[in-house]
Amino acid sequence: MKRNILIIPGDGIGQEVTTWGKQVLESIAQKYNHEFVFDEAIMGHTAIEATGDPLPNETLEKAKASDAILFGAIGHAKYDNDPSAKVRPEQGLLKIRKELGLYANLRPILLFDELLDASSLKPEVLRGTDILFFRELTGDVYFGEKKRNEDNTFASDLMNYHRYEVERIARKAYEAARTRSKKLCSVDKANVLETSRLWREVVQEIAAEYPDVETEHMFIDNAAMQLVKNPKKFDVVLTANLFGDILTDEASQIAGSMGMLASASIGDGTGFFEPIHGSAHDIAGQNKANPLASILSVALMLDIAFGLQDEAKAVTSAVADTLKAGWRTGDIANSSTPQDKILGTNEMGQKVLE
Amino acid sequence: MKRNILIIPGDGIGQEVTTWGKQVLESIAQKYNHEFVFDEAIMGHTAIEATGDPLPNETLEKAKASDAILFGAIGHAKYDNDPSAKVRPEQGLLKIRKELGLYANLRPILLFDELLDASSLKPEVLRGTDILFFRELTGDVYFGEKKRNEDNTFASDLMNYHRYEVERIARKAYEAARTRSKKLCSVDKANVLETSRLWREVVQEIAAEYPDVETEHMFIDNAAMQLVKNPKKFDVVLTANLFGDILTDEASQIAGSMGMLASASIGDGTGFFEPIHGSAHDIAGQNKANPLASILSVALMLDIAFGLQDEAKAVTSAVADTLKAGWRTGDIANSSTPQDKILGTNEMGQKVLE
Ligand SMILES: CC(C)[C@H](C(=O)O)[C@@H](O)C(=O)O
Ligand SMILES: CC(C)[C@H](C(=O)O)[C@@H](O)C(=O)O
Repeated sequence: MKRNILIIPGDGIGQEVTTWGKQVLESIAQKYNHEFVFDEAIMGHTAIEATGDPLPNETLEKAKASDAILFGAIGHAKYDNDPSAKVRPEQGLLKIRKELGLYANLRPILLFDELLDASSLKPEVLRGTDILFFRELTGDVYFGEKKRNEDNTFASDLMNYHRYEVERIARKAYEAARTRSKKLCSVDKANVLETSRLWREVVQEIAAEYPDVETEHMFIDNAAMQLVKNPKKFDVVLTANLFGDILTDEASQIAGSMGMLASASIGDGTGFFEPIHGSAHDIAGQNKANPLASILSVALMLDIAFGLQDEAKAVTSAVADTLKAGWRTGDIANSSTPQDKILGTNEMGQKVLE
Repeated sequence: MKRNILIIPGDGIGQEVTTWGKQVLESIAQKYNHEFVFDEAIMGHTAIEATGDPLPNETLEKAKASDAILFGAIGHAKYDNDPSAKVRPEQGLLKIRKELGLYANLRPILLFDELLDASSLKPEVLRGTDILFFRELTGDVYFGEKKRNEDNTFASDLMNYHRYEVERIARKAYEAARTRSKKLCSVDKANVLETSRLWREVVQEIAAEYPDVETEHMFIDNAAMQLVKNPKKFDVVLTANLFGDILTDEASQIAGSMGMLASASIGDGTGFFEPIHGSAHDIAGQNKANPLASILSVALMLDIAFGLQDEAKAVTSAVADTLKAGWRTGDIANSSTPQDKILGTNEMGQKVLE
């Protein structure tokens, strides 16, 4: 199989972790006789520095022309502390999601038995947890009209959903639920938000098309609580852009660390694969970042974008074996991890490759 | 001291739990020689059934005329599953918050050592946690204009903040931070939302007035994660209405159960005291609800509304002693709790009274 893969390292630790994602792809290509052709492009803070634009046209063109994209991370503290900045790294990520029509963001919460102890949650609470989030990614308050009045006394963002936006992601989530334990939980705030009431109405309609799937509706505040209290009760979780952003970061603690979680953004065209962690500038360039989320993003790419299930499994198994052998990066180590088992980004990447 | 207290039981378990809040107030009045005059009013589903209006005028008038309000809970599944319902219980709660100008919602995460084991988080992660949330309560997407187009293909809610709304709650939070460990974390989503950028700008300005308080700004997704990973790192947390709703429910798991958390809503006039838990219709009327959140709401009322610190401490100590003696309601019991130590609502209330 021949495929064109665009690597967008982005900002901060993005460069370090995608390097390992790419090496894993190269090793899979060799072992399974595929031809993966790589190109690279800039986005975010890195792109602003180079061109003034967080998503240069060239990057967007390359993205559209590729078969899949491996992305690193985005963001820089410089903009975070300057609320009046007009150009921001995140605009690049939001724009590429919109331009590529990446409306469904899949975030599997994959629990490796070896990491049960790395979490702040009790092992007995965690054991057996297996959640697949479907986060809507191109609508909601992220993309609604933003306003700020001239004297800076008022600001607003329009939270909104169109029926078709809810329908298409709901269908994707129900299809996935069918292949899993046939349970779907839709999360909203329908007791307060009109947007959520439309969301719930549409999900109820789509639910009727999937009578074999058991549907539950939950308020976001309750869901944020239940996710800590009893994560096992969730299977497929379907939610809007903002709520999904919050819940999946929270859920990362189930997997022990943000450094373990991969995500796939899919829609009408090219798929986009990225860790859910951020740019972590505080540890960038120090060989400390956990490359496993990027490597697991590669597994999602192989599976979802290329339909290469065996290759995807090979990658996930390599990660599992590395963890079984006791290797850890700092974020997933705990007080009982022997010092000589704690690796840097490169050494961890190397272990998985082997 | 003579004070007029309005009891609004609301829906579901609200009736059962406020009964015990009231009895504790009566016992405090007797012991400390105060005169608490009680009145009662309806709100929510209960009020819709009786009058068609979730917040009848009579309730609002009584509320305005009282010195403090003890509220139970609101909501009913009937409306939750009917996204097109025009009249909803929650409208009553939102309207009374707005009408009484209750812009600051204080939610202390009080950790009783005895309940360290009731949480799904590891005791070593929890120990020493002491967080005070300041949730903005009369702005944000809760109160912005709601729209739905005629053919039900589109819905929206306006997320918005005025500068003065951020200023006044920020000042309250900074004042509180001064009396605690002088650390404040403001939570927003300034990398995406204009509302959050205004929020951050204003908080930065107010922060300059409190140079003795250390300020941190955090994105909501990160905060939702950190709260599970390392709750101890938080002290005063300042955030908007929607984010506060989500974070405080999530944080309830730190305290072991939603059944333990009280809140105080304050602003320009009469203060409003309520548990953060909901109406829990599934257990209503079964003598199963945990009355401690309502009783701890009474402690907040004595402290914040009446300035009766000793009386407030007496209530909190009574709760602590009851827990120390091993008594539990179902929600805070765990597998090692002896069966005969698990009490119903009334028995638990009685133990605290004693
Ligand atoms: C960087 C930010 C804009 C982004 C989001 O909020 O979507 C990130 O948190 C994510 O979850 O991918
Ligand atoms: C019942 C609901 C409207 C309310 C809210 O979202 O504010 C509740 O969840 C709360 O936190 O007090």
